[in-house]
Amino acid sequence: MKAVVIGASGTIGQAIVEALGQRHEIITVGSHSGQYQADLKDIAQVRALFAQIGKVDAVLVAAGILHIGPLDEMTPEQFHIGLNSKLMGQVNVALVAQHYLNDGGSITLTSGVDAHQPIRHGANASTSNSAVEGFVRAAAAELKRGLRINVVNPTLLTESASKYGHLFPGFETVPVKRVALAYMRSAEGIETGQTYKVWH
Amino acid sequence: MKAVVIGASGTIGQAIVEALGQRHEIITVGSHSGQYQADLKDIAQVRALFAQIGKVDAVLVAAGILHIGPLDEMTPEQFHIGLNSKLMGQVNVALVAQHYLNDGGSITLTSGVDAHQPIRHGANASTSNSAVEGFVRAAAAELKRGLRINVVNPTLLTESASKYGHLFPGFETVPVKRVALAYMRSAEGIETGQTYKVWH
Ligand SMILES: NC(=O)c1ccc[n+]([C@@H]2O[C@H](COP(=O)([O-])OP(=O)(O)OC[C@H]3O[C@@H](n4cnc5c(N)ncnc54)[C@H](OP(=O)(O)O)[C@@H]3O)[C@@H](O)[C@H]2O)c1
Ligand SMILES: NC(=O)c1ccc[n+]([C@@H]2O[C@H](COP(=O)([O-])OP(=O)(O)OC[C@H]3O[C@@H](n4cnc5c(N)ncnc54)[C@H](OP(=O)(O)O)[C@@H]3O)[C@@H](O)[C@H]2O)c1
Repeated sequence: MKAVVIGASGTIGQAIVEALGQRHEIITVGSHSGQYQADLKDIAQVRALFAQIGKVDAVLVAAGILHIGPLDEMTPEQFHIGLNSKLMGQVNVALVAQHYLNDGGSITLTSGVDAHQPIRHGANASTSNSAVEGFVRAAAAELKRGLRINVVNPTLLTESASKYGHLFPGFETVPVKRVALAYMRSAEGIETGQTYKVWH
Repeated sequence: MKAVVIGASGTIGQAIVEALGQRHEIITVGSHSGQYQADLKDIAQVRALFAQIGKVDAVLVAAGILHIGPLDEMTPEQFHIGLNSKLMGQVNVALVAQHYLNDGGSITLTSGVDAHQPIRHGANASTSNSAVEGFVRAAAAELKRGLRINVVNPTLLTESASKYGHLFPGFETVPVKRVALAYMRSAEGIETGQTYKVWH
């Protein structure tokens, strides 16, 4: 299997590469890192990326940022940070990748626990992550040629607790190795339209 | 109670006005219709709207359009139709209304059954409606002064079956009178962060 990992240099991305790389050919992508570069926010760059890479069997995305800030001061501009990056970045990949995947191939996107369990200052995160999951439910039902799409919803990673732990007081963390299994299950399994919650 | 109904001239809006108008003072809004005009897509117009109206007890939105079209041809521009109108239109209202609501006041937004039950050509609808519901989950936990926010998720209305029925084959419809009850429950009840599904 030939698998593209977008966000491969990140905490989750590295674990995906480690898990899938043992048996599959991996192509790594980032906006500045990896074998290929593309900013997912810009669909022209995503199109150029896949035109270079060509046909693949799996596309996995572990990238996309969100705005964290108080609701009572939030502006539409701040709100668009997550919509443009976490949501449309991943939607752009799906819109383009559907035309480059071999029959039966898969797309795996990433949301986050705050889609369902709100955190302080997390309105943009809950919105953008819920949107990604809604997209996956619908896209799964419409993709052709046996193509599949799922989303992994990790809670706070143990490895990211020092960076983001203050936003998730009392949330149990999960080791990134466990999260990587969900991406593997999506890419190598048979399900579609699933949200794989890796929460505890 | 003073209640602002945005989208008051629409199928759902009219039913809300009818249900709430019997006991409350109603202010009607549309982009071209109603006592006040504002295009929700533009937060400057939403700010100007509330600056004119002043303090209120309930804000109910039954407005916002979506793009319906095949996934394998969808462009980011088409995708933004729902994000700008159905999602950000309603988010804009919530961001502004939180500063104009009296203590304990409420915001009620609208999603749609396709957030959870995908329809053909409905990727943008599922995404935008799921996003609205995610926003409501998070905003409910962060609003101050006892402010509440809920979302009504109607399935296809009996009254809209001739217009949209072809998109929802085999879906049971609900009369708009029943849907209006959910808006009343949100505005006059005590719950927050709820998605009121009016499906069958
Ligand atoms: N860490 C957690 O605890 C956690 C929990 C739940 C969900 N998540 C979600 O999982 C995703 C990955 O998280 P992470 O902690 O692994 O992130 P990370 O360590 O910050 O890595 C992000 C990766 O994405 C790439 N990237 C960032 N912006 C990009 C863009 N616009 N276009 C293309 N590539 C881009 C980065 O490469 P370049 O620097 O080269 O661009 C990097 O490889 C995020 O969406 C995050 O919200 C994380
Ligand atoms: N009808 C259904 O079966 C159904 C089912 C589930 C969910 N929904 C959702 O419920 C909402 C209302 O549906 P509906 O069928 O009642 O709609 P509708 O009959 O088409 O009415 C739409 C209302 O919204 C106003 N409006 C439209 N765009 C606006 C904008 N940009 N800014 C401010 N006001 C705007 C319109 O007034 P102006 O013309 O003056 O702008 C009108 O009052 C929609 O978001 C729809 O997706 C509908």
